Amino acid sequence: MSLKISRALVADDLAAVEKKMQKAVDNAYGPLSDALELLIRSGGKRVRPMLTLLAGRFHPPRDHKRLISLAAAIESLHTATLVHDDVIDGALLRRGQSTLNAVWTPSSTIMAGDFFFARAAGLVAETKHPRVISLFADTLQVIVDGELRQAFTARDWSQPKEGYYQRIYGKTAALFELATRAPAALGDAPATSEEALRSFGYHLGMAFQIVDDILDFVADEKTLGKPAGSDLRAGIITLPVYFFIQQPQRRQQIIGMIEGRPTGDPIVAEVVQMVRNSDAIEQAHDEARAFVEQALADLDALPALPARDALIDVARYVVERTY
Amino acid sequence: MSLKISRALVADDLAAVEKKMQKAVDNAYGPLSDALELLIRSGGKRVRPMLTLLAGRFHPPRDHKRLISLAAAIESLHTATLVHDDVIDGALLRRGQSTLNAVWTPSSTIMAGDFFFARAAGLVAETKHPRVISLFADTLQVIVDGELRQAFTARDWSQPKEGYYQRIYGKTAALFELATRAPAALGDAPATSEEALRSFGYHLGMAFQIVDDILDFVADEKTLGKPAGSDLRAGIITLPVYFFIQQPQRRQQIIGMIEGRPTGDPIVAEVVQMVRNSDAIEQAHDEARAFVEQALADLDALPALPARDALIDVARYVVERTY
Repeated sequence: MSLKISRALVADDLAAVEKKMQKAVDNAYGPLSDALELLIRSGGKRVRPMLTLLAGRFHPPRDHKRLISLAAAIESLHTATLVHDDVIDGALLRRGQSTLNAVWTPSSTIMAGDFFFARAAGLVAETKHPRVISLFADTLQVIVDGELRQAFTARDWSQPKEGYYQRIYGKTAALFELATRAPAALGDAPATSEEALRSFGYHLGMAFQIVDDILDFVADEKTLGKPAGSDLRAGIITLPVYFFIQQPQRRQQIIGMIEGRPTGDPIVAEVVQMVRNSDAIEQAHDEARAFVEQALADLDALPALPARDALIDVARYVVERTY
Repeated sequence: MSLKISRALVADDLAAVEKKMQKAVDNAYGPLSDALELLIRSGGKRVRPMLTLLAGRFHPPRDHKRLISLAAAIESLHTATLVHDDVIDGALLRRGQSTLNAVWTPSSTIMAGDFFFARAAGLVAETKHPRVISLFADTLQVIVDGELRQAFTARDWSQPKEGYYQRIYGKTAALFELATRAPAALGDAPATSEEALRSFGYHLGMAFQIVDDILDFVADEKTLGKPAGSDLRAGIITLPVYFFIQQPQRRQQIIGMIEGRPTGDPIVAEVVQMVRNSDAIEQAHDEARAFVEQALADLDALPALPARDALIDVARYVVERTY
């Protein structure tokens, strides 16, 4: 399963998005531009702008350039949050590259993140569409709120599953939702289309993050581009851990192993193994699959364009990239 | 010299801005809301929203609420940059209060800054005015660029005066310029009015930052709300230092004292004394006065409303608050 078909459909637009992001960095203040360019180049799969460009096919805006600006704005916002998250999580590797945090001071990393926030604001302003801009600003607030929730619920072993869902909504699904909804708003699509695309983005984003959280346990460091179990090391309780600790005996065992130890303690590697070998992984994967099914059902409300097939392709990729 | 007269003219509007900012914090995620509220309450003199509200009197927008949103957006953006600057500068005191940085982890401080960035974006989106939003986004980019320049020119003893001016434009004058220009854009004012207000804000902002940089040498820690000479401690060369090192002998002397020593070394206190007792302070103050004169001249293009007298009052306050 790959994203080849979907990517091919919007290849020219994706290239335009890339060029727009590149141009922003070229204009940055000299000494930082190399580092910013590295961040752009190590830019992952561009899933979010791809979703924006595909969603934009259903009700194209009058000025196609604004869709490109929107897609670049969404990816810039994603980059900004990744950079700041690296400081917040203390992560040293991301996408297989050293994070800025590992080679830079915290203050440079903050500035690099702020740079992409500022670019995102500039790019979304280019849409000149007040409602799109409002949706964008609302999403930014949800994302920041999600960061806060995650920081303040670390090592809270009795948090409900809803708490996890609320956090991954802020961390991931809110931006996916924006990526698929905002193009509809930009194209002044009927409310039913916008809602179908929003709901698709939401369900897909939830599935995407659950799969990410599973991969954090089951993938090897090379595939993952960062150390396995990094969330648990930081005290963040994701869905596999949630399911694992629903058995009181297991809960007592891992609390006993982890509590009182500093983040990054090697004992966490043992706990990661226990979770990896348990049925909690499959339980979490069932939930991811259920979200993808809902995402696919959302697409029924949209006309059978090639873009719809491509969105189906993206949705399947999201759950199947695990194994 | 105080801001009493100007403040009285827009007292109701300032209260509305305060309420809007307060409300944003009340809705924040629980554990952080107290800290965010402290940041709001220790909010300084509200010079920027005051300027926005006064500038808004010349060509009032049809919907007055949007002017309130704009003023709150500008102050929120200011708060965001203060919070991140505290991490970047490593400052422990700001406005006489411990900074978040002194009591919090860097990651919490990043999140608090991001929170105010997000609020600022949400508030400016409420203006629903694409050009105002574009001006806001452009300013954010200039501010971040200024942060970068400052970080990368530390301890560069041969930087030209233009480098200093460019940095304080990003650090302060760009936001002052936005504060006085954006209300004109919001009220769809004629280009000449908008330009007069923009230029006024620019000149005032330049003067404001020069005076701030003088105060960093001449004021005591209590008045200042932070340690004296904090910029020089961080290797930042401000206008008083620039003038001081124009004499080659002095330049050699202070480079000899500071170079190779870590930031925060007690030797800086001696250098601060040398600059404080030199003619460099008065030279810098002459430049601040010249900027204020230009700001006052800009106001000639505007009608003689009470708001214009209030802006004159603010401009005089800016240079006279020094002594």
